[in-house]
Amino acid sequence: MKENNIKELKTSPPLGGGGGDSIHVFAPATVANVVCGFDVLGFAVNEPGDEVIMRVTNKPGITISKITGDDGRLPLDPAKNTVSVSVKHYLESVGRTDLGLDIELHKKMPIGSGLGSSSASTVAGLFAAKTLLGDNSDPINQLPFAMKGEELACGHGHADNVAPALFGGFVLIRSYEPLDVIRLPYPPGLYCAIVFPDVDVPTREARQIIRNKILMKDAVTQWGNIAGLVSGLFMQDIDLIGRSMQDILVEPVRSMLIPDFYKMREIAMNLGAVSFGISGSGPSVFAFARDEETAKLITQKLQQHLTGIQIGSNAYVSTINDKGPKILG
Amino acid sequence: MKENNIKELKTSPPLGGGGGDSIHVFAPATVANVVCGFDVLGFAVNEPGDEVIMRVTNKPGITISKITGDDGRLPLDPAKNTVSVSVKHYLESVGRTDLGLDIELHKKMPIGSGLGSSSASTVAGLFAAKTLLGDNSDPINQLPFAMKGEELACGHGHADNVAPALFGGFVLIRSYEPLDVIRLPYPPGLYCAIVFPDVDVPTREARQIIRNKILMKDAVTQWGNIAGLVSGLFMQDIDLIGRSMQDILVEPVRSMLIPDFYKMREIAMNLGAVSFGISGSGPSVFAFARDEETAKLITQKLQQHLTGIQIGSNAYVSTINDKGPKILG
Repeated sequence: MKENNIKELKTSPPLGGGGGDSIHVFAPATVANVVCGFDVLGFAVNEPGDEVIMRVTNKPGITISKITGDDGRLPLDPAKNTVSVSVKHYLESVGRTDLGLDIELHKKMPIGSGLGSSSASTVAGLFAAKTLLGDNSDPINQLPFAMKGEELACGHGHADNVAPALFGGFVLIRSYEPLDVIRLPYPPGLYCAIVFPDVDVPTREARQIIRNKILMKDAVTQWGNIAGLVSGLFMQDIDLIGRSMQDILVEPVRSMLIPDFYKMREIAMNLGAVSFGISGSGPSVFAFARDEETAKLITQKLQQHLTGIQIGSNAYVSTINDKGPKILG
Repeated sequence: MKENNIKELKTSPPLGGGGGDSIHVFAPATVANVVCGFDVLGFAVNEPGDEVIMRVTNKPGITISKITGDDGRLPLDPAKNTVSVSVKHYLESVGRTDLGLDIELHKKMPIGSGLGSSSASTVAGLFAAKTLLGDNSDPINQLPFAMKGEELACGHGHADNVAPALFGGFVLIRSYEPLDVIRLPYPPGLYCAIVFPDVDVPTREARQIIRNKILMKDAVTQWGNIAGLVSGLFMQDIDLIGRSMQDILVEPVRSMLIPDFYKMREIAMNLGAVSFGISGSGPSVFAFARDEETAKLITQKLQQHLTGIQIGSNAYVSTINDKGPKILG
């Protein structure tokens, strides 16, 4: 962790570093766990994502003037919203609590989908604030503040959604204490097909059903697979990536909360998916595909199947996001 | 697994493919587990290693005429020796049970040291037979026969010693069923310091003391570390390799069988080791170092410490072996 950049900012944090007095940003959805990397791996996609419009105000403190796309589920109270809470931590760290910032949050993806919804919002908020302040320091400096937002959202300060949302690409959280985050390469042209079946799987509950104790031999299988996946990412070996993406520990439990999970896997794999699994704690599922056409066909057939069992769904097809958040205006 | 090469050999296995009627070969010692990769990772070193002299005889079948360096501990009976058993499986697979082969095995490293002693002998035997037969197929084809030797030696057909002994370098055994072996890169100039404290730690017993059940949270820590180690190997990032080489599951138990393990770690790390851990099931310990001088100093000080507590030791310093077995004459 390079804390220096943050500390330097404390002395002279400029305002209006290219962003003027208001800014409109996007931050990406993320797929955590990546099947065999429970709690340590995640990647970002180009679609969906959340948007934040942030404006400098005259009154010190953070306000939330508007939230759209949340069906009224998210709090406007800045003390309870993950975006404002993480931005507040950031402003405190750079000694700019004198600032006034107003947040408009536009949710462009479903909440509780397992796609890092809260992370996307939080990272969008932090990126907006950072850009308004003209803070060009490494995004890694914002990870602790983003994790504060996760703590509020899920009861645990995980980084496997916020880190890829901040950096883009694939990210390994090797260790939490001390925090050690490694950006991994990935093969070009890898497409991600995501389907969100509209059922309720709260993150907290999805965590609670996971066993506390596991067999050593199953853990060995799992770390052989994560080592294989990481190797495949570096080697740009899509076959190796595919055959490494197996999870014998978490998926067998969490899949019970997802309608027709194994049937959906069968459909996706038969259509030529490289791999298939649960995104984060679900209920969203994702597949890797070698081309856009296959990815689109996978989402189409999965949505058809879900419709057939009276379950609504959203679907997204995109390449891996390689930059993290971006300025929209 | 490319089985084709083996099948082709069945029809016309030539003899004397450059090796004449006798051959003298070397195969390297190996460090399995590599601290955080229990049962799935291993690497080969240039020193120590075992040697086999193999001669074509007139009488079908395999004989062992001589074993040196084993203090009379290894069986001359070809049905009980790992070298002859694995060579026999190989000859059967290529349809050459008509051949007569005599084996001289020269142990150049201690038995029961945790340095893949049986693997080095087995791989030397298989490489000698393969070369005598003019079989140029990929070494991966010999892995199943080498694993038969391991089964005889340790009661379990592990591959984390035989695979790196066969290929050289770092090897990941992603999966056993089906067998999936991945060769990993590593940074140039990495030195390995090995010290074998002369105490008895039989492999079977060292396996038995490992817990069957572990905490999920500890497994997560472990697979974060193996993912970090694999990343470090690809990125040639020696710092990342070092900080990823932590084992909270196996080492705390196995270290109890090794005299002054934690004191030895302290000595090695204080001398500038990149990392320190148990080689295989022990009692050998190893450290990575950035240069030969540091590696030599580490072995010297560790041996001094062991002498001080009345324990004899052997020490080896070498770079990573990058080729596996080789012809000596």
